[in-house]
Amino acid sequence: MNQADNPLKWLKNPTPEPSLSAREAAALHQRDLAKPFGSLGALESIAIEFASWQNCKKPKLDHVCQRIFVGDHGVTAEGVSVFGQQTTSEMLRNAANERSVIGILSKANGIDVSIVNLGTVLPVDDLDTVIDLHLAPGTANFCKQAAMDEGLLLSAIDAGREHGARKGCQLFIGGEIGVGNTSSASAICSAALTLPVEQSVGRGSGVDDSRFEQKQKAIRTALDRHRTSIRQPLGVLRHVGGLEIAALTAAYIDAAQRGIPVLVDGFVCSAAALLACQINPGVRRWMIFSHRSQEPGHQHILTKLDAKPLLDLNLRLGEATGAALALPLIRSALLLHEGLARFSSQNISA
Amino acid sequence: MNQADNPLKWLKNPTPEPSLSAREAAALHQRDLAKPFGSLGALESIAIEFASWQNCKKPKLDHVCQRIFVGDHGVTAEGVSVFGQQTTSEMLRNAANERSVIGILSKANGIDVSIVNLGTVLPVDDLDTVIDLHLAPGTANFCKQAAMDEGLLLSAIDAGREHGARKGCQLFIGGEIGVGNTSSASAICSAALTLPVEQSVGRGSGVDDSRFEQKQKAIRTALDRHRTSIRQPLGVLRHVGGLEIAALTAAYIDAAQRGIPVLVDGFVCSAAALLACQINPGVRRWMIFSHRSQEPGHQHILTKLDAKPLLDLNLRLGEATGAALALPLIRSALLLHEGLARFSSQNISA
Repeated sequence: MNQADNPLKWLKNPTPEPSLSAREAAALHQRDLAKPFGSLGALESIAIEFASWQNCKKPKLDHVCQRIFVGDHGVTAEGVSVFGQQTTSEMLRNAANERSVIGILSKANGIDVSIVNLGTVLPVDDLDTVIDLHLAPGTANFCKQAAMDEGLLLSAIDAGREHGARKGCQLFIGGEIGVGNTSSASAICSAALTLPVEQSVGRGSGVDDSRFEQKQKAIRTALDRHRTSIRQPLGVLRHVGGLEIAALTAAYIDAAQRGIPVLVDGFVCSAAALLACQINPGVRRWMIFSHRSQEPGHQHILTKLDAKPLLDLNLRLGEATGAALALPLIRSALLLHEGLARFSSQNISA
Repeated sequence: MNQADNPLKWLKNPTPEPSLSAREAAALHQRDLAKPFGSLGALESIAIEFASWQNCKKPKLDHVCQRIFVGDHGVTAEGVSVFGQQTTSEMLRNAANERSVIGILSKANGIDVSIVNLGTVLPVDDLDTVIDLHLAPGTANFCKQAAMDEGLLLSAIDAGREHGARKGCQLFIGGEIGVGNTSSASAICSAALTLPVEQSVGRGSGVDDSRFEQKQKAIRTALDRHRTSIRQPLGVLRHVGGLEIAALTAAYIDAAQRGIPVLVDGFVCSAAALLACQINPGVRRWMIFSHRSQEPGHQHILTKLDAKPLLDLNLRLGEATGAALALPLIRSALLLHEGLARFSSQNISA
């Protein structure tokens, strides 16, 4: 690809600096709140981070935008999942229903959700609430060839940028659905962190010992096959990534470039977040992490990104579950930061 | 005290058994929900626990009752806190205000809150929203004598029973305010778990190195002075406890005896929970733990009680903050358990 007219060049465009003065004003304000300083632990840091992101001493969180990206994975042919690829379409149909995890949690938390289908093996074309792009019938089996060719990677990245954070939202949440995508995330984790496969691969949606070995073997095969192509994050993304992971990576970078913070969900989203930060390190300053999942590779990514997630509930569902569950904590942090009585205006001994 | 007409005898009355059949029905129901079994981690366990508590496959959480117990601590004279005892009354006044942590979080979460003042050094008698019992001007300095005499302990326990979980509530949250009460909780932790003081004492509301040493020394002095009186949990409670801790202990036992589960807050509440379980082991089955605090003694109590708290946010405020923050997670767990589509009624491959 010619670097001059590289359509992916925007990925490296600079991100704004979170406001240092608003951070300092918020930190001073925290010291004036009628409680021992530091006693609200992580909630104090959240409020201070949001202040720096919104360039405002008392940040608000009225508009949260959540996008669930969906894609199928050719590597599923290697028997890496308890589910077949047709299940992705069923999960997508289910997610679009109000009786899904996404439906229930987004309603309870007042989150604006859209589902973006980048490409499933079985088309899903009769759902009003789904943006159906259908770029391809999933990725290719990355044990045998690159998951995406350059054109498909570009389309997925464009889709993530176009259908990412809505203008004016104060927080972007990405989520994902895709049978086989913990295999892709593990391959990304091992490739991007130069980590042995045993340390990046978990049980995903719940595979038994036999499938677990198949999963490890498939990822080893892929990493070996593509070893010369996965030295750069975009190479990793194209060769062992997924359509939804490429879209997430782009959506995270785009949000950060527009000064919108992102709440990262679990393992698959964190793999996209890792690539986003490797492509464009400034993105990291716009990220907050929602939860620590059961997947072993997730720990390594969190450590690499120096991330302290808010929750640790042994979740492994994906679909932005952890992010939706963490949202009330963020809301509480901002409510307390905004509403608590102050020493300087009350009869309280500091 | 004569055992036959012992007014504390009720503390050992049996607690009901959480329903095994409802637990099994809820667990089967979880297996039928349209998601990989186990993928919602701790949320699945929460729903199953509540089912066993409510003897109902699909439990509800409409009525949450929160009581904040307040008391002063004579040990504050030893310089164990950054605050003086007069601050307890100020914290109480602040808590009764809607601009307090309690006020803000209880409003946001729809929690019914009352504040019960068991005894502060400075009387607080002009607040409509506070139940002002004023049993004593705080406890005695437990470095010099028992914190409470038998009559005062009995009054505090009676108050906890009388002003504990409201009839018909589905969850009881206890909270506490009392300058010096992490010293009391550390002393309880060391006495009840036979733990060296270095492992039970933390920085409380934020003491510096010098006060930290004074705090350790005061607790060592107290444990040595009362060593023959603190071999039983009620002896621990009377000699090194606090008015609010005695009330919490009683309120936890009373709730469990009435089949009302309790959401335990941080270190001080967990010290009361530990004593409640030592006095009446059946109480443990009615407990859920909200958060892991910064206090080192808290870890030991949680381990002893085999408790896995929902949150770990480095809180150390008390005032039921962690419990109020954990509540949305419990609500989400029950919403998902109730509302998720089922494999058996949907077109989804199990």
